[in-house]
Amino acid sequence: MNPTAAILVIGDEILSGRTKDKNIGWLAEKLTDMGIQLIEARVIADVEDVIISHVKALSESVDYVFTSGGIGPTHDDITTKSIAAAFDVAVERNPEAMRRLVEHYRDTDIDFNEARQKMADIPVGATLIDNPVSAAPGFILHNVHVMAGVPSILQSMFDGFSHILSGGVRPTRITVQCATGEGNIATIMGDIGSEEGISVGSYPWFKPGQFGTAVVLTGLDAQKTGEAAKRLMQLVHKAGFEAAIEA
Amino acid sequence: MNPTAAILVIGDEILSGRTKDKNIGWLAEKLTDMGIQLIEARVIADVEDVIISHVKALSESVDYVFTSGGIGPTHDDITTKSIAAAFDVAVERNPEAMRRLVEHYRDTDIDFNEARQKMADIPVGATLIDNPVSAAPGFILHNVHVMAGVPSILQSMFDGFSHILSGGVRPTRITVQCATGEGNIATIMGDIGSEEGISVGSYPWFKPGQFGTAVVLTGLDAQKTGEAAKRLMQLVHKAGFEAAIEA
Repeated sequence: MNPTAAILVIGDEILSGRTKDKNIGWLAEKLTDMGIQLIEARVIADVEDVIISHVKALSESVDYVFTSGGIGPTHDDITTKSIAAAFDVAVERNPEAMRRLVEHYRDTDIDFNEARQKMADIPVGATLIDNPVSAAPGFILHNVHVMAGVPSILQSMFDGFSHILSGGVRPTRITVQCATGEGNIATIMGDIGSEEGISVGSYPWFKPGQFGTAVVLTGLDAQKTGEAAKRLMQLVHKAGFEAAIEA
Repeated sequence: MNPTAAILVIGDEILSGRTKDKNIGWLAEKLTDMGIQLIEARVIADVEDVIISHVKALSESVDYVFTSGGIGPTHDDITTKSIAAAFDVAVERNPEAMRRLVEHYRDTDIDFNEARQKMADIPVGATLIDNPVSAAPGFILHNVHVMAGVPSILQSMFDGFSHILSGGVRPTRITVQCATGEGNIATIMGDIGSEEGISVGSYPWFKPGQFGTAVVLTGLDAQKTGEAAKRLMQLVHKAGFEAAIEA
């Protein structure tokens, strides 16, 4: 069994539609490549009780939780407070985080004021996550990895600590290109998809004068997945349509 | 109080990162414009028990649930079955849905086979949602609106039935452009954001040689929101930075 994960996007600006989330898709791809199975992603509001209850629920149900958003020098510093509260620990001004921020702001004419110093407030017992972009660290508390919402910062944070995550078997993914609509091969896909350990996705495509379906087989066992792809191709041939395994 | 909503994206292909979700952002904007408050969005797997439990939980906690994905002629017809099961009703071959599909396929050389006929399977008592793109209807069961995952189809479906939703007060949204970093005005934003009925978001921006923060005030009371924006602008001026309300 591969380790499991959940993503928690914290942000009123996503729920209002003002900002479009890009972190779910980026993290989903990364996790899949590492053999970590993303079970669920949620987008929730910047509200303390809401954050606490979702963090608790997800932290108990998966191996890794990744949060995005709600940390930074703005007014809504409730994310850090809420995640600490979910695990019943206090928030303290972290000396190492302070050191990094002081250094970051030293040679600028930006005032390292109280609002910015609050970015050094970290739950007691948490591990800092490096922020190569803007210094203010994220943190890891139990199995919850708290990152900034800005995609470039989140990506640099994740890439910085991802080597400590226990990955699993990277799934084998084979695409069978079929020169027909998905409705003509639905039964075949259903049969192959009902085999243990094989999941089947179908992605119809259209271009001028042509259409087809990319059938994607995914499985943790490379040999089994390869055999299932061949079987699917043969069944599509038998049904009278062209099909080929994509190199 | 404005009506509330939740989005449930059903799709293994989103969780694997193969497909990037575009429906949450699009629906979020539409709902906000209609005065319907989006409380939460979730992305979940194509698994019957998972779908049933999330549909039940969200259907009880908000006024409107919108689902995306999991309907169509493919093997994974478990969405319809699961949503019916969540409300303890059976699935039947819907005569009106059949009529639409027969008509859609009549003048094509596509075989209207059993897999495609399954797209007419609809929970008993549900209302059909028109699909101007590819005929196969979505449906509304209780407060759950079940739509296709392909963005163009989802959008045409939503635009077709959205007039029947009870909207609320469309929030007033005012942007105050401030010529300074968000860390310099965090306290001011915090003060204004703690006023009842006013929420404050801040969006730092950078371009060569310049930076600033767009502060967005949102509230259901237009006059109150306008006054809060003026107050914020004056406080930013007082702190020594340029600020202006965006037209």
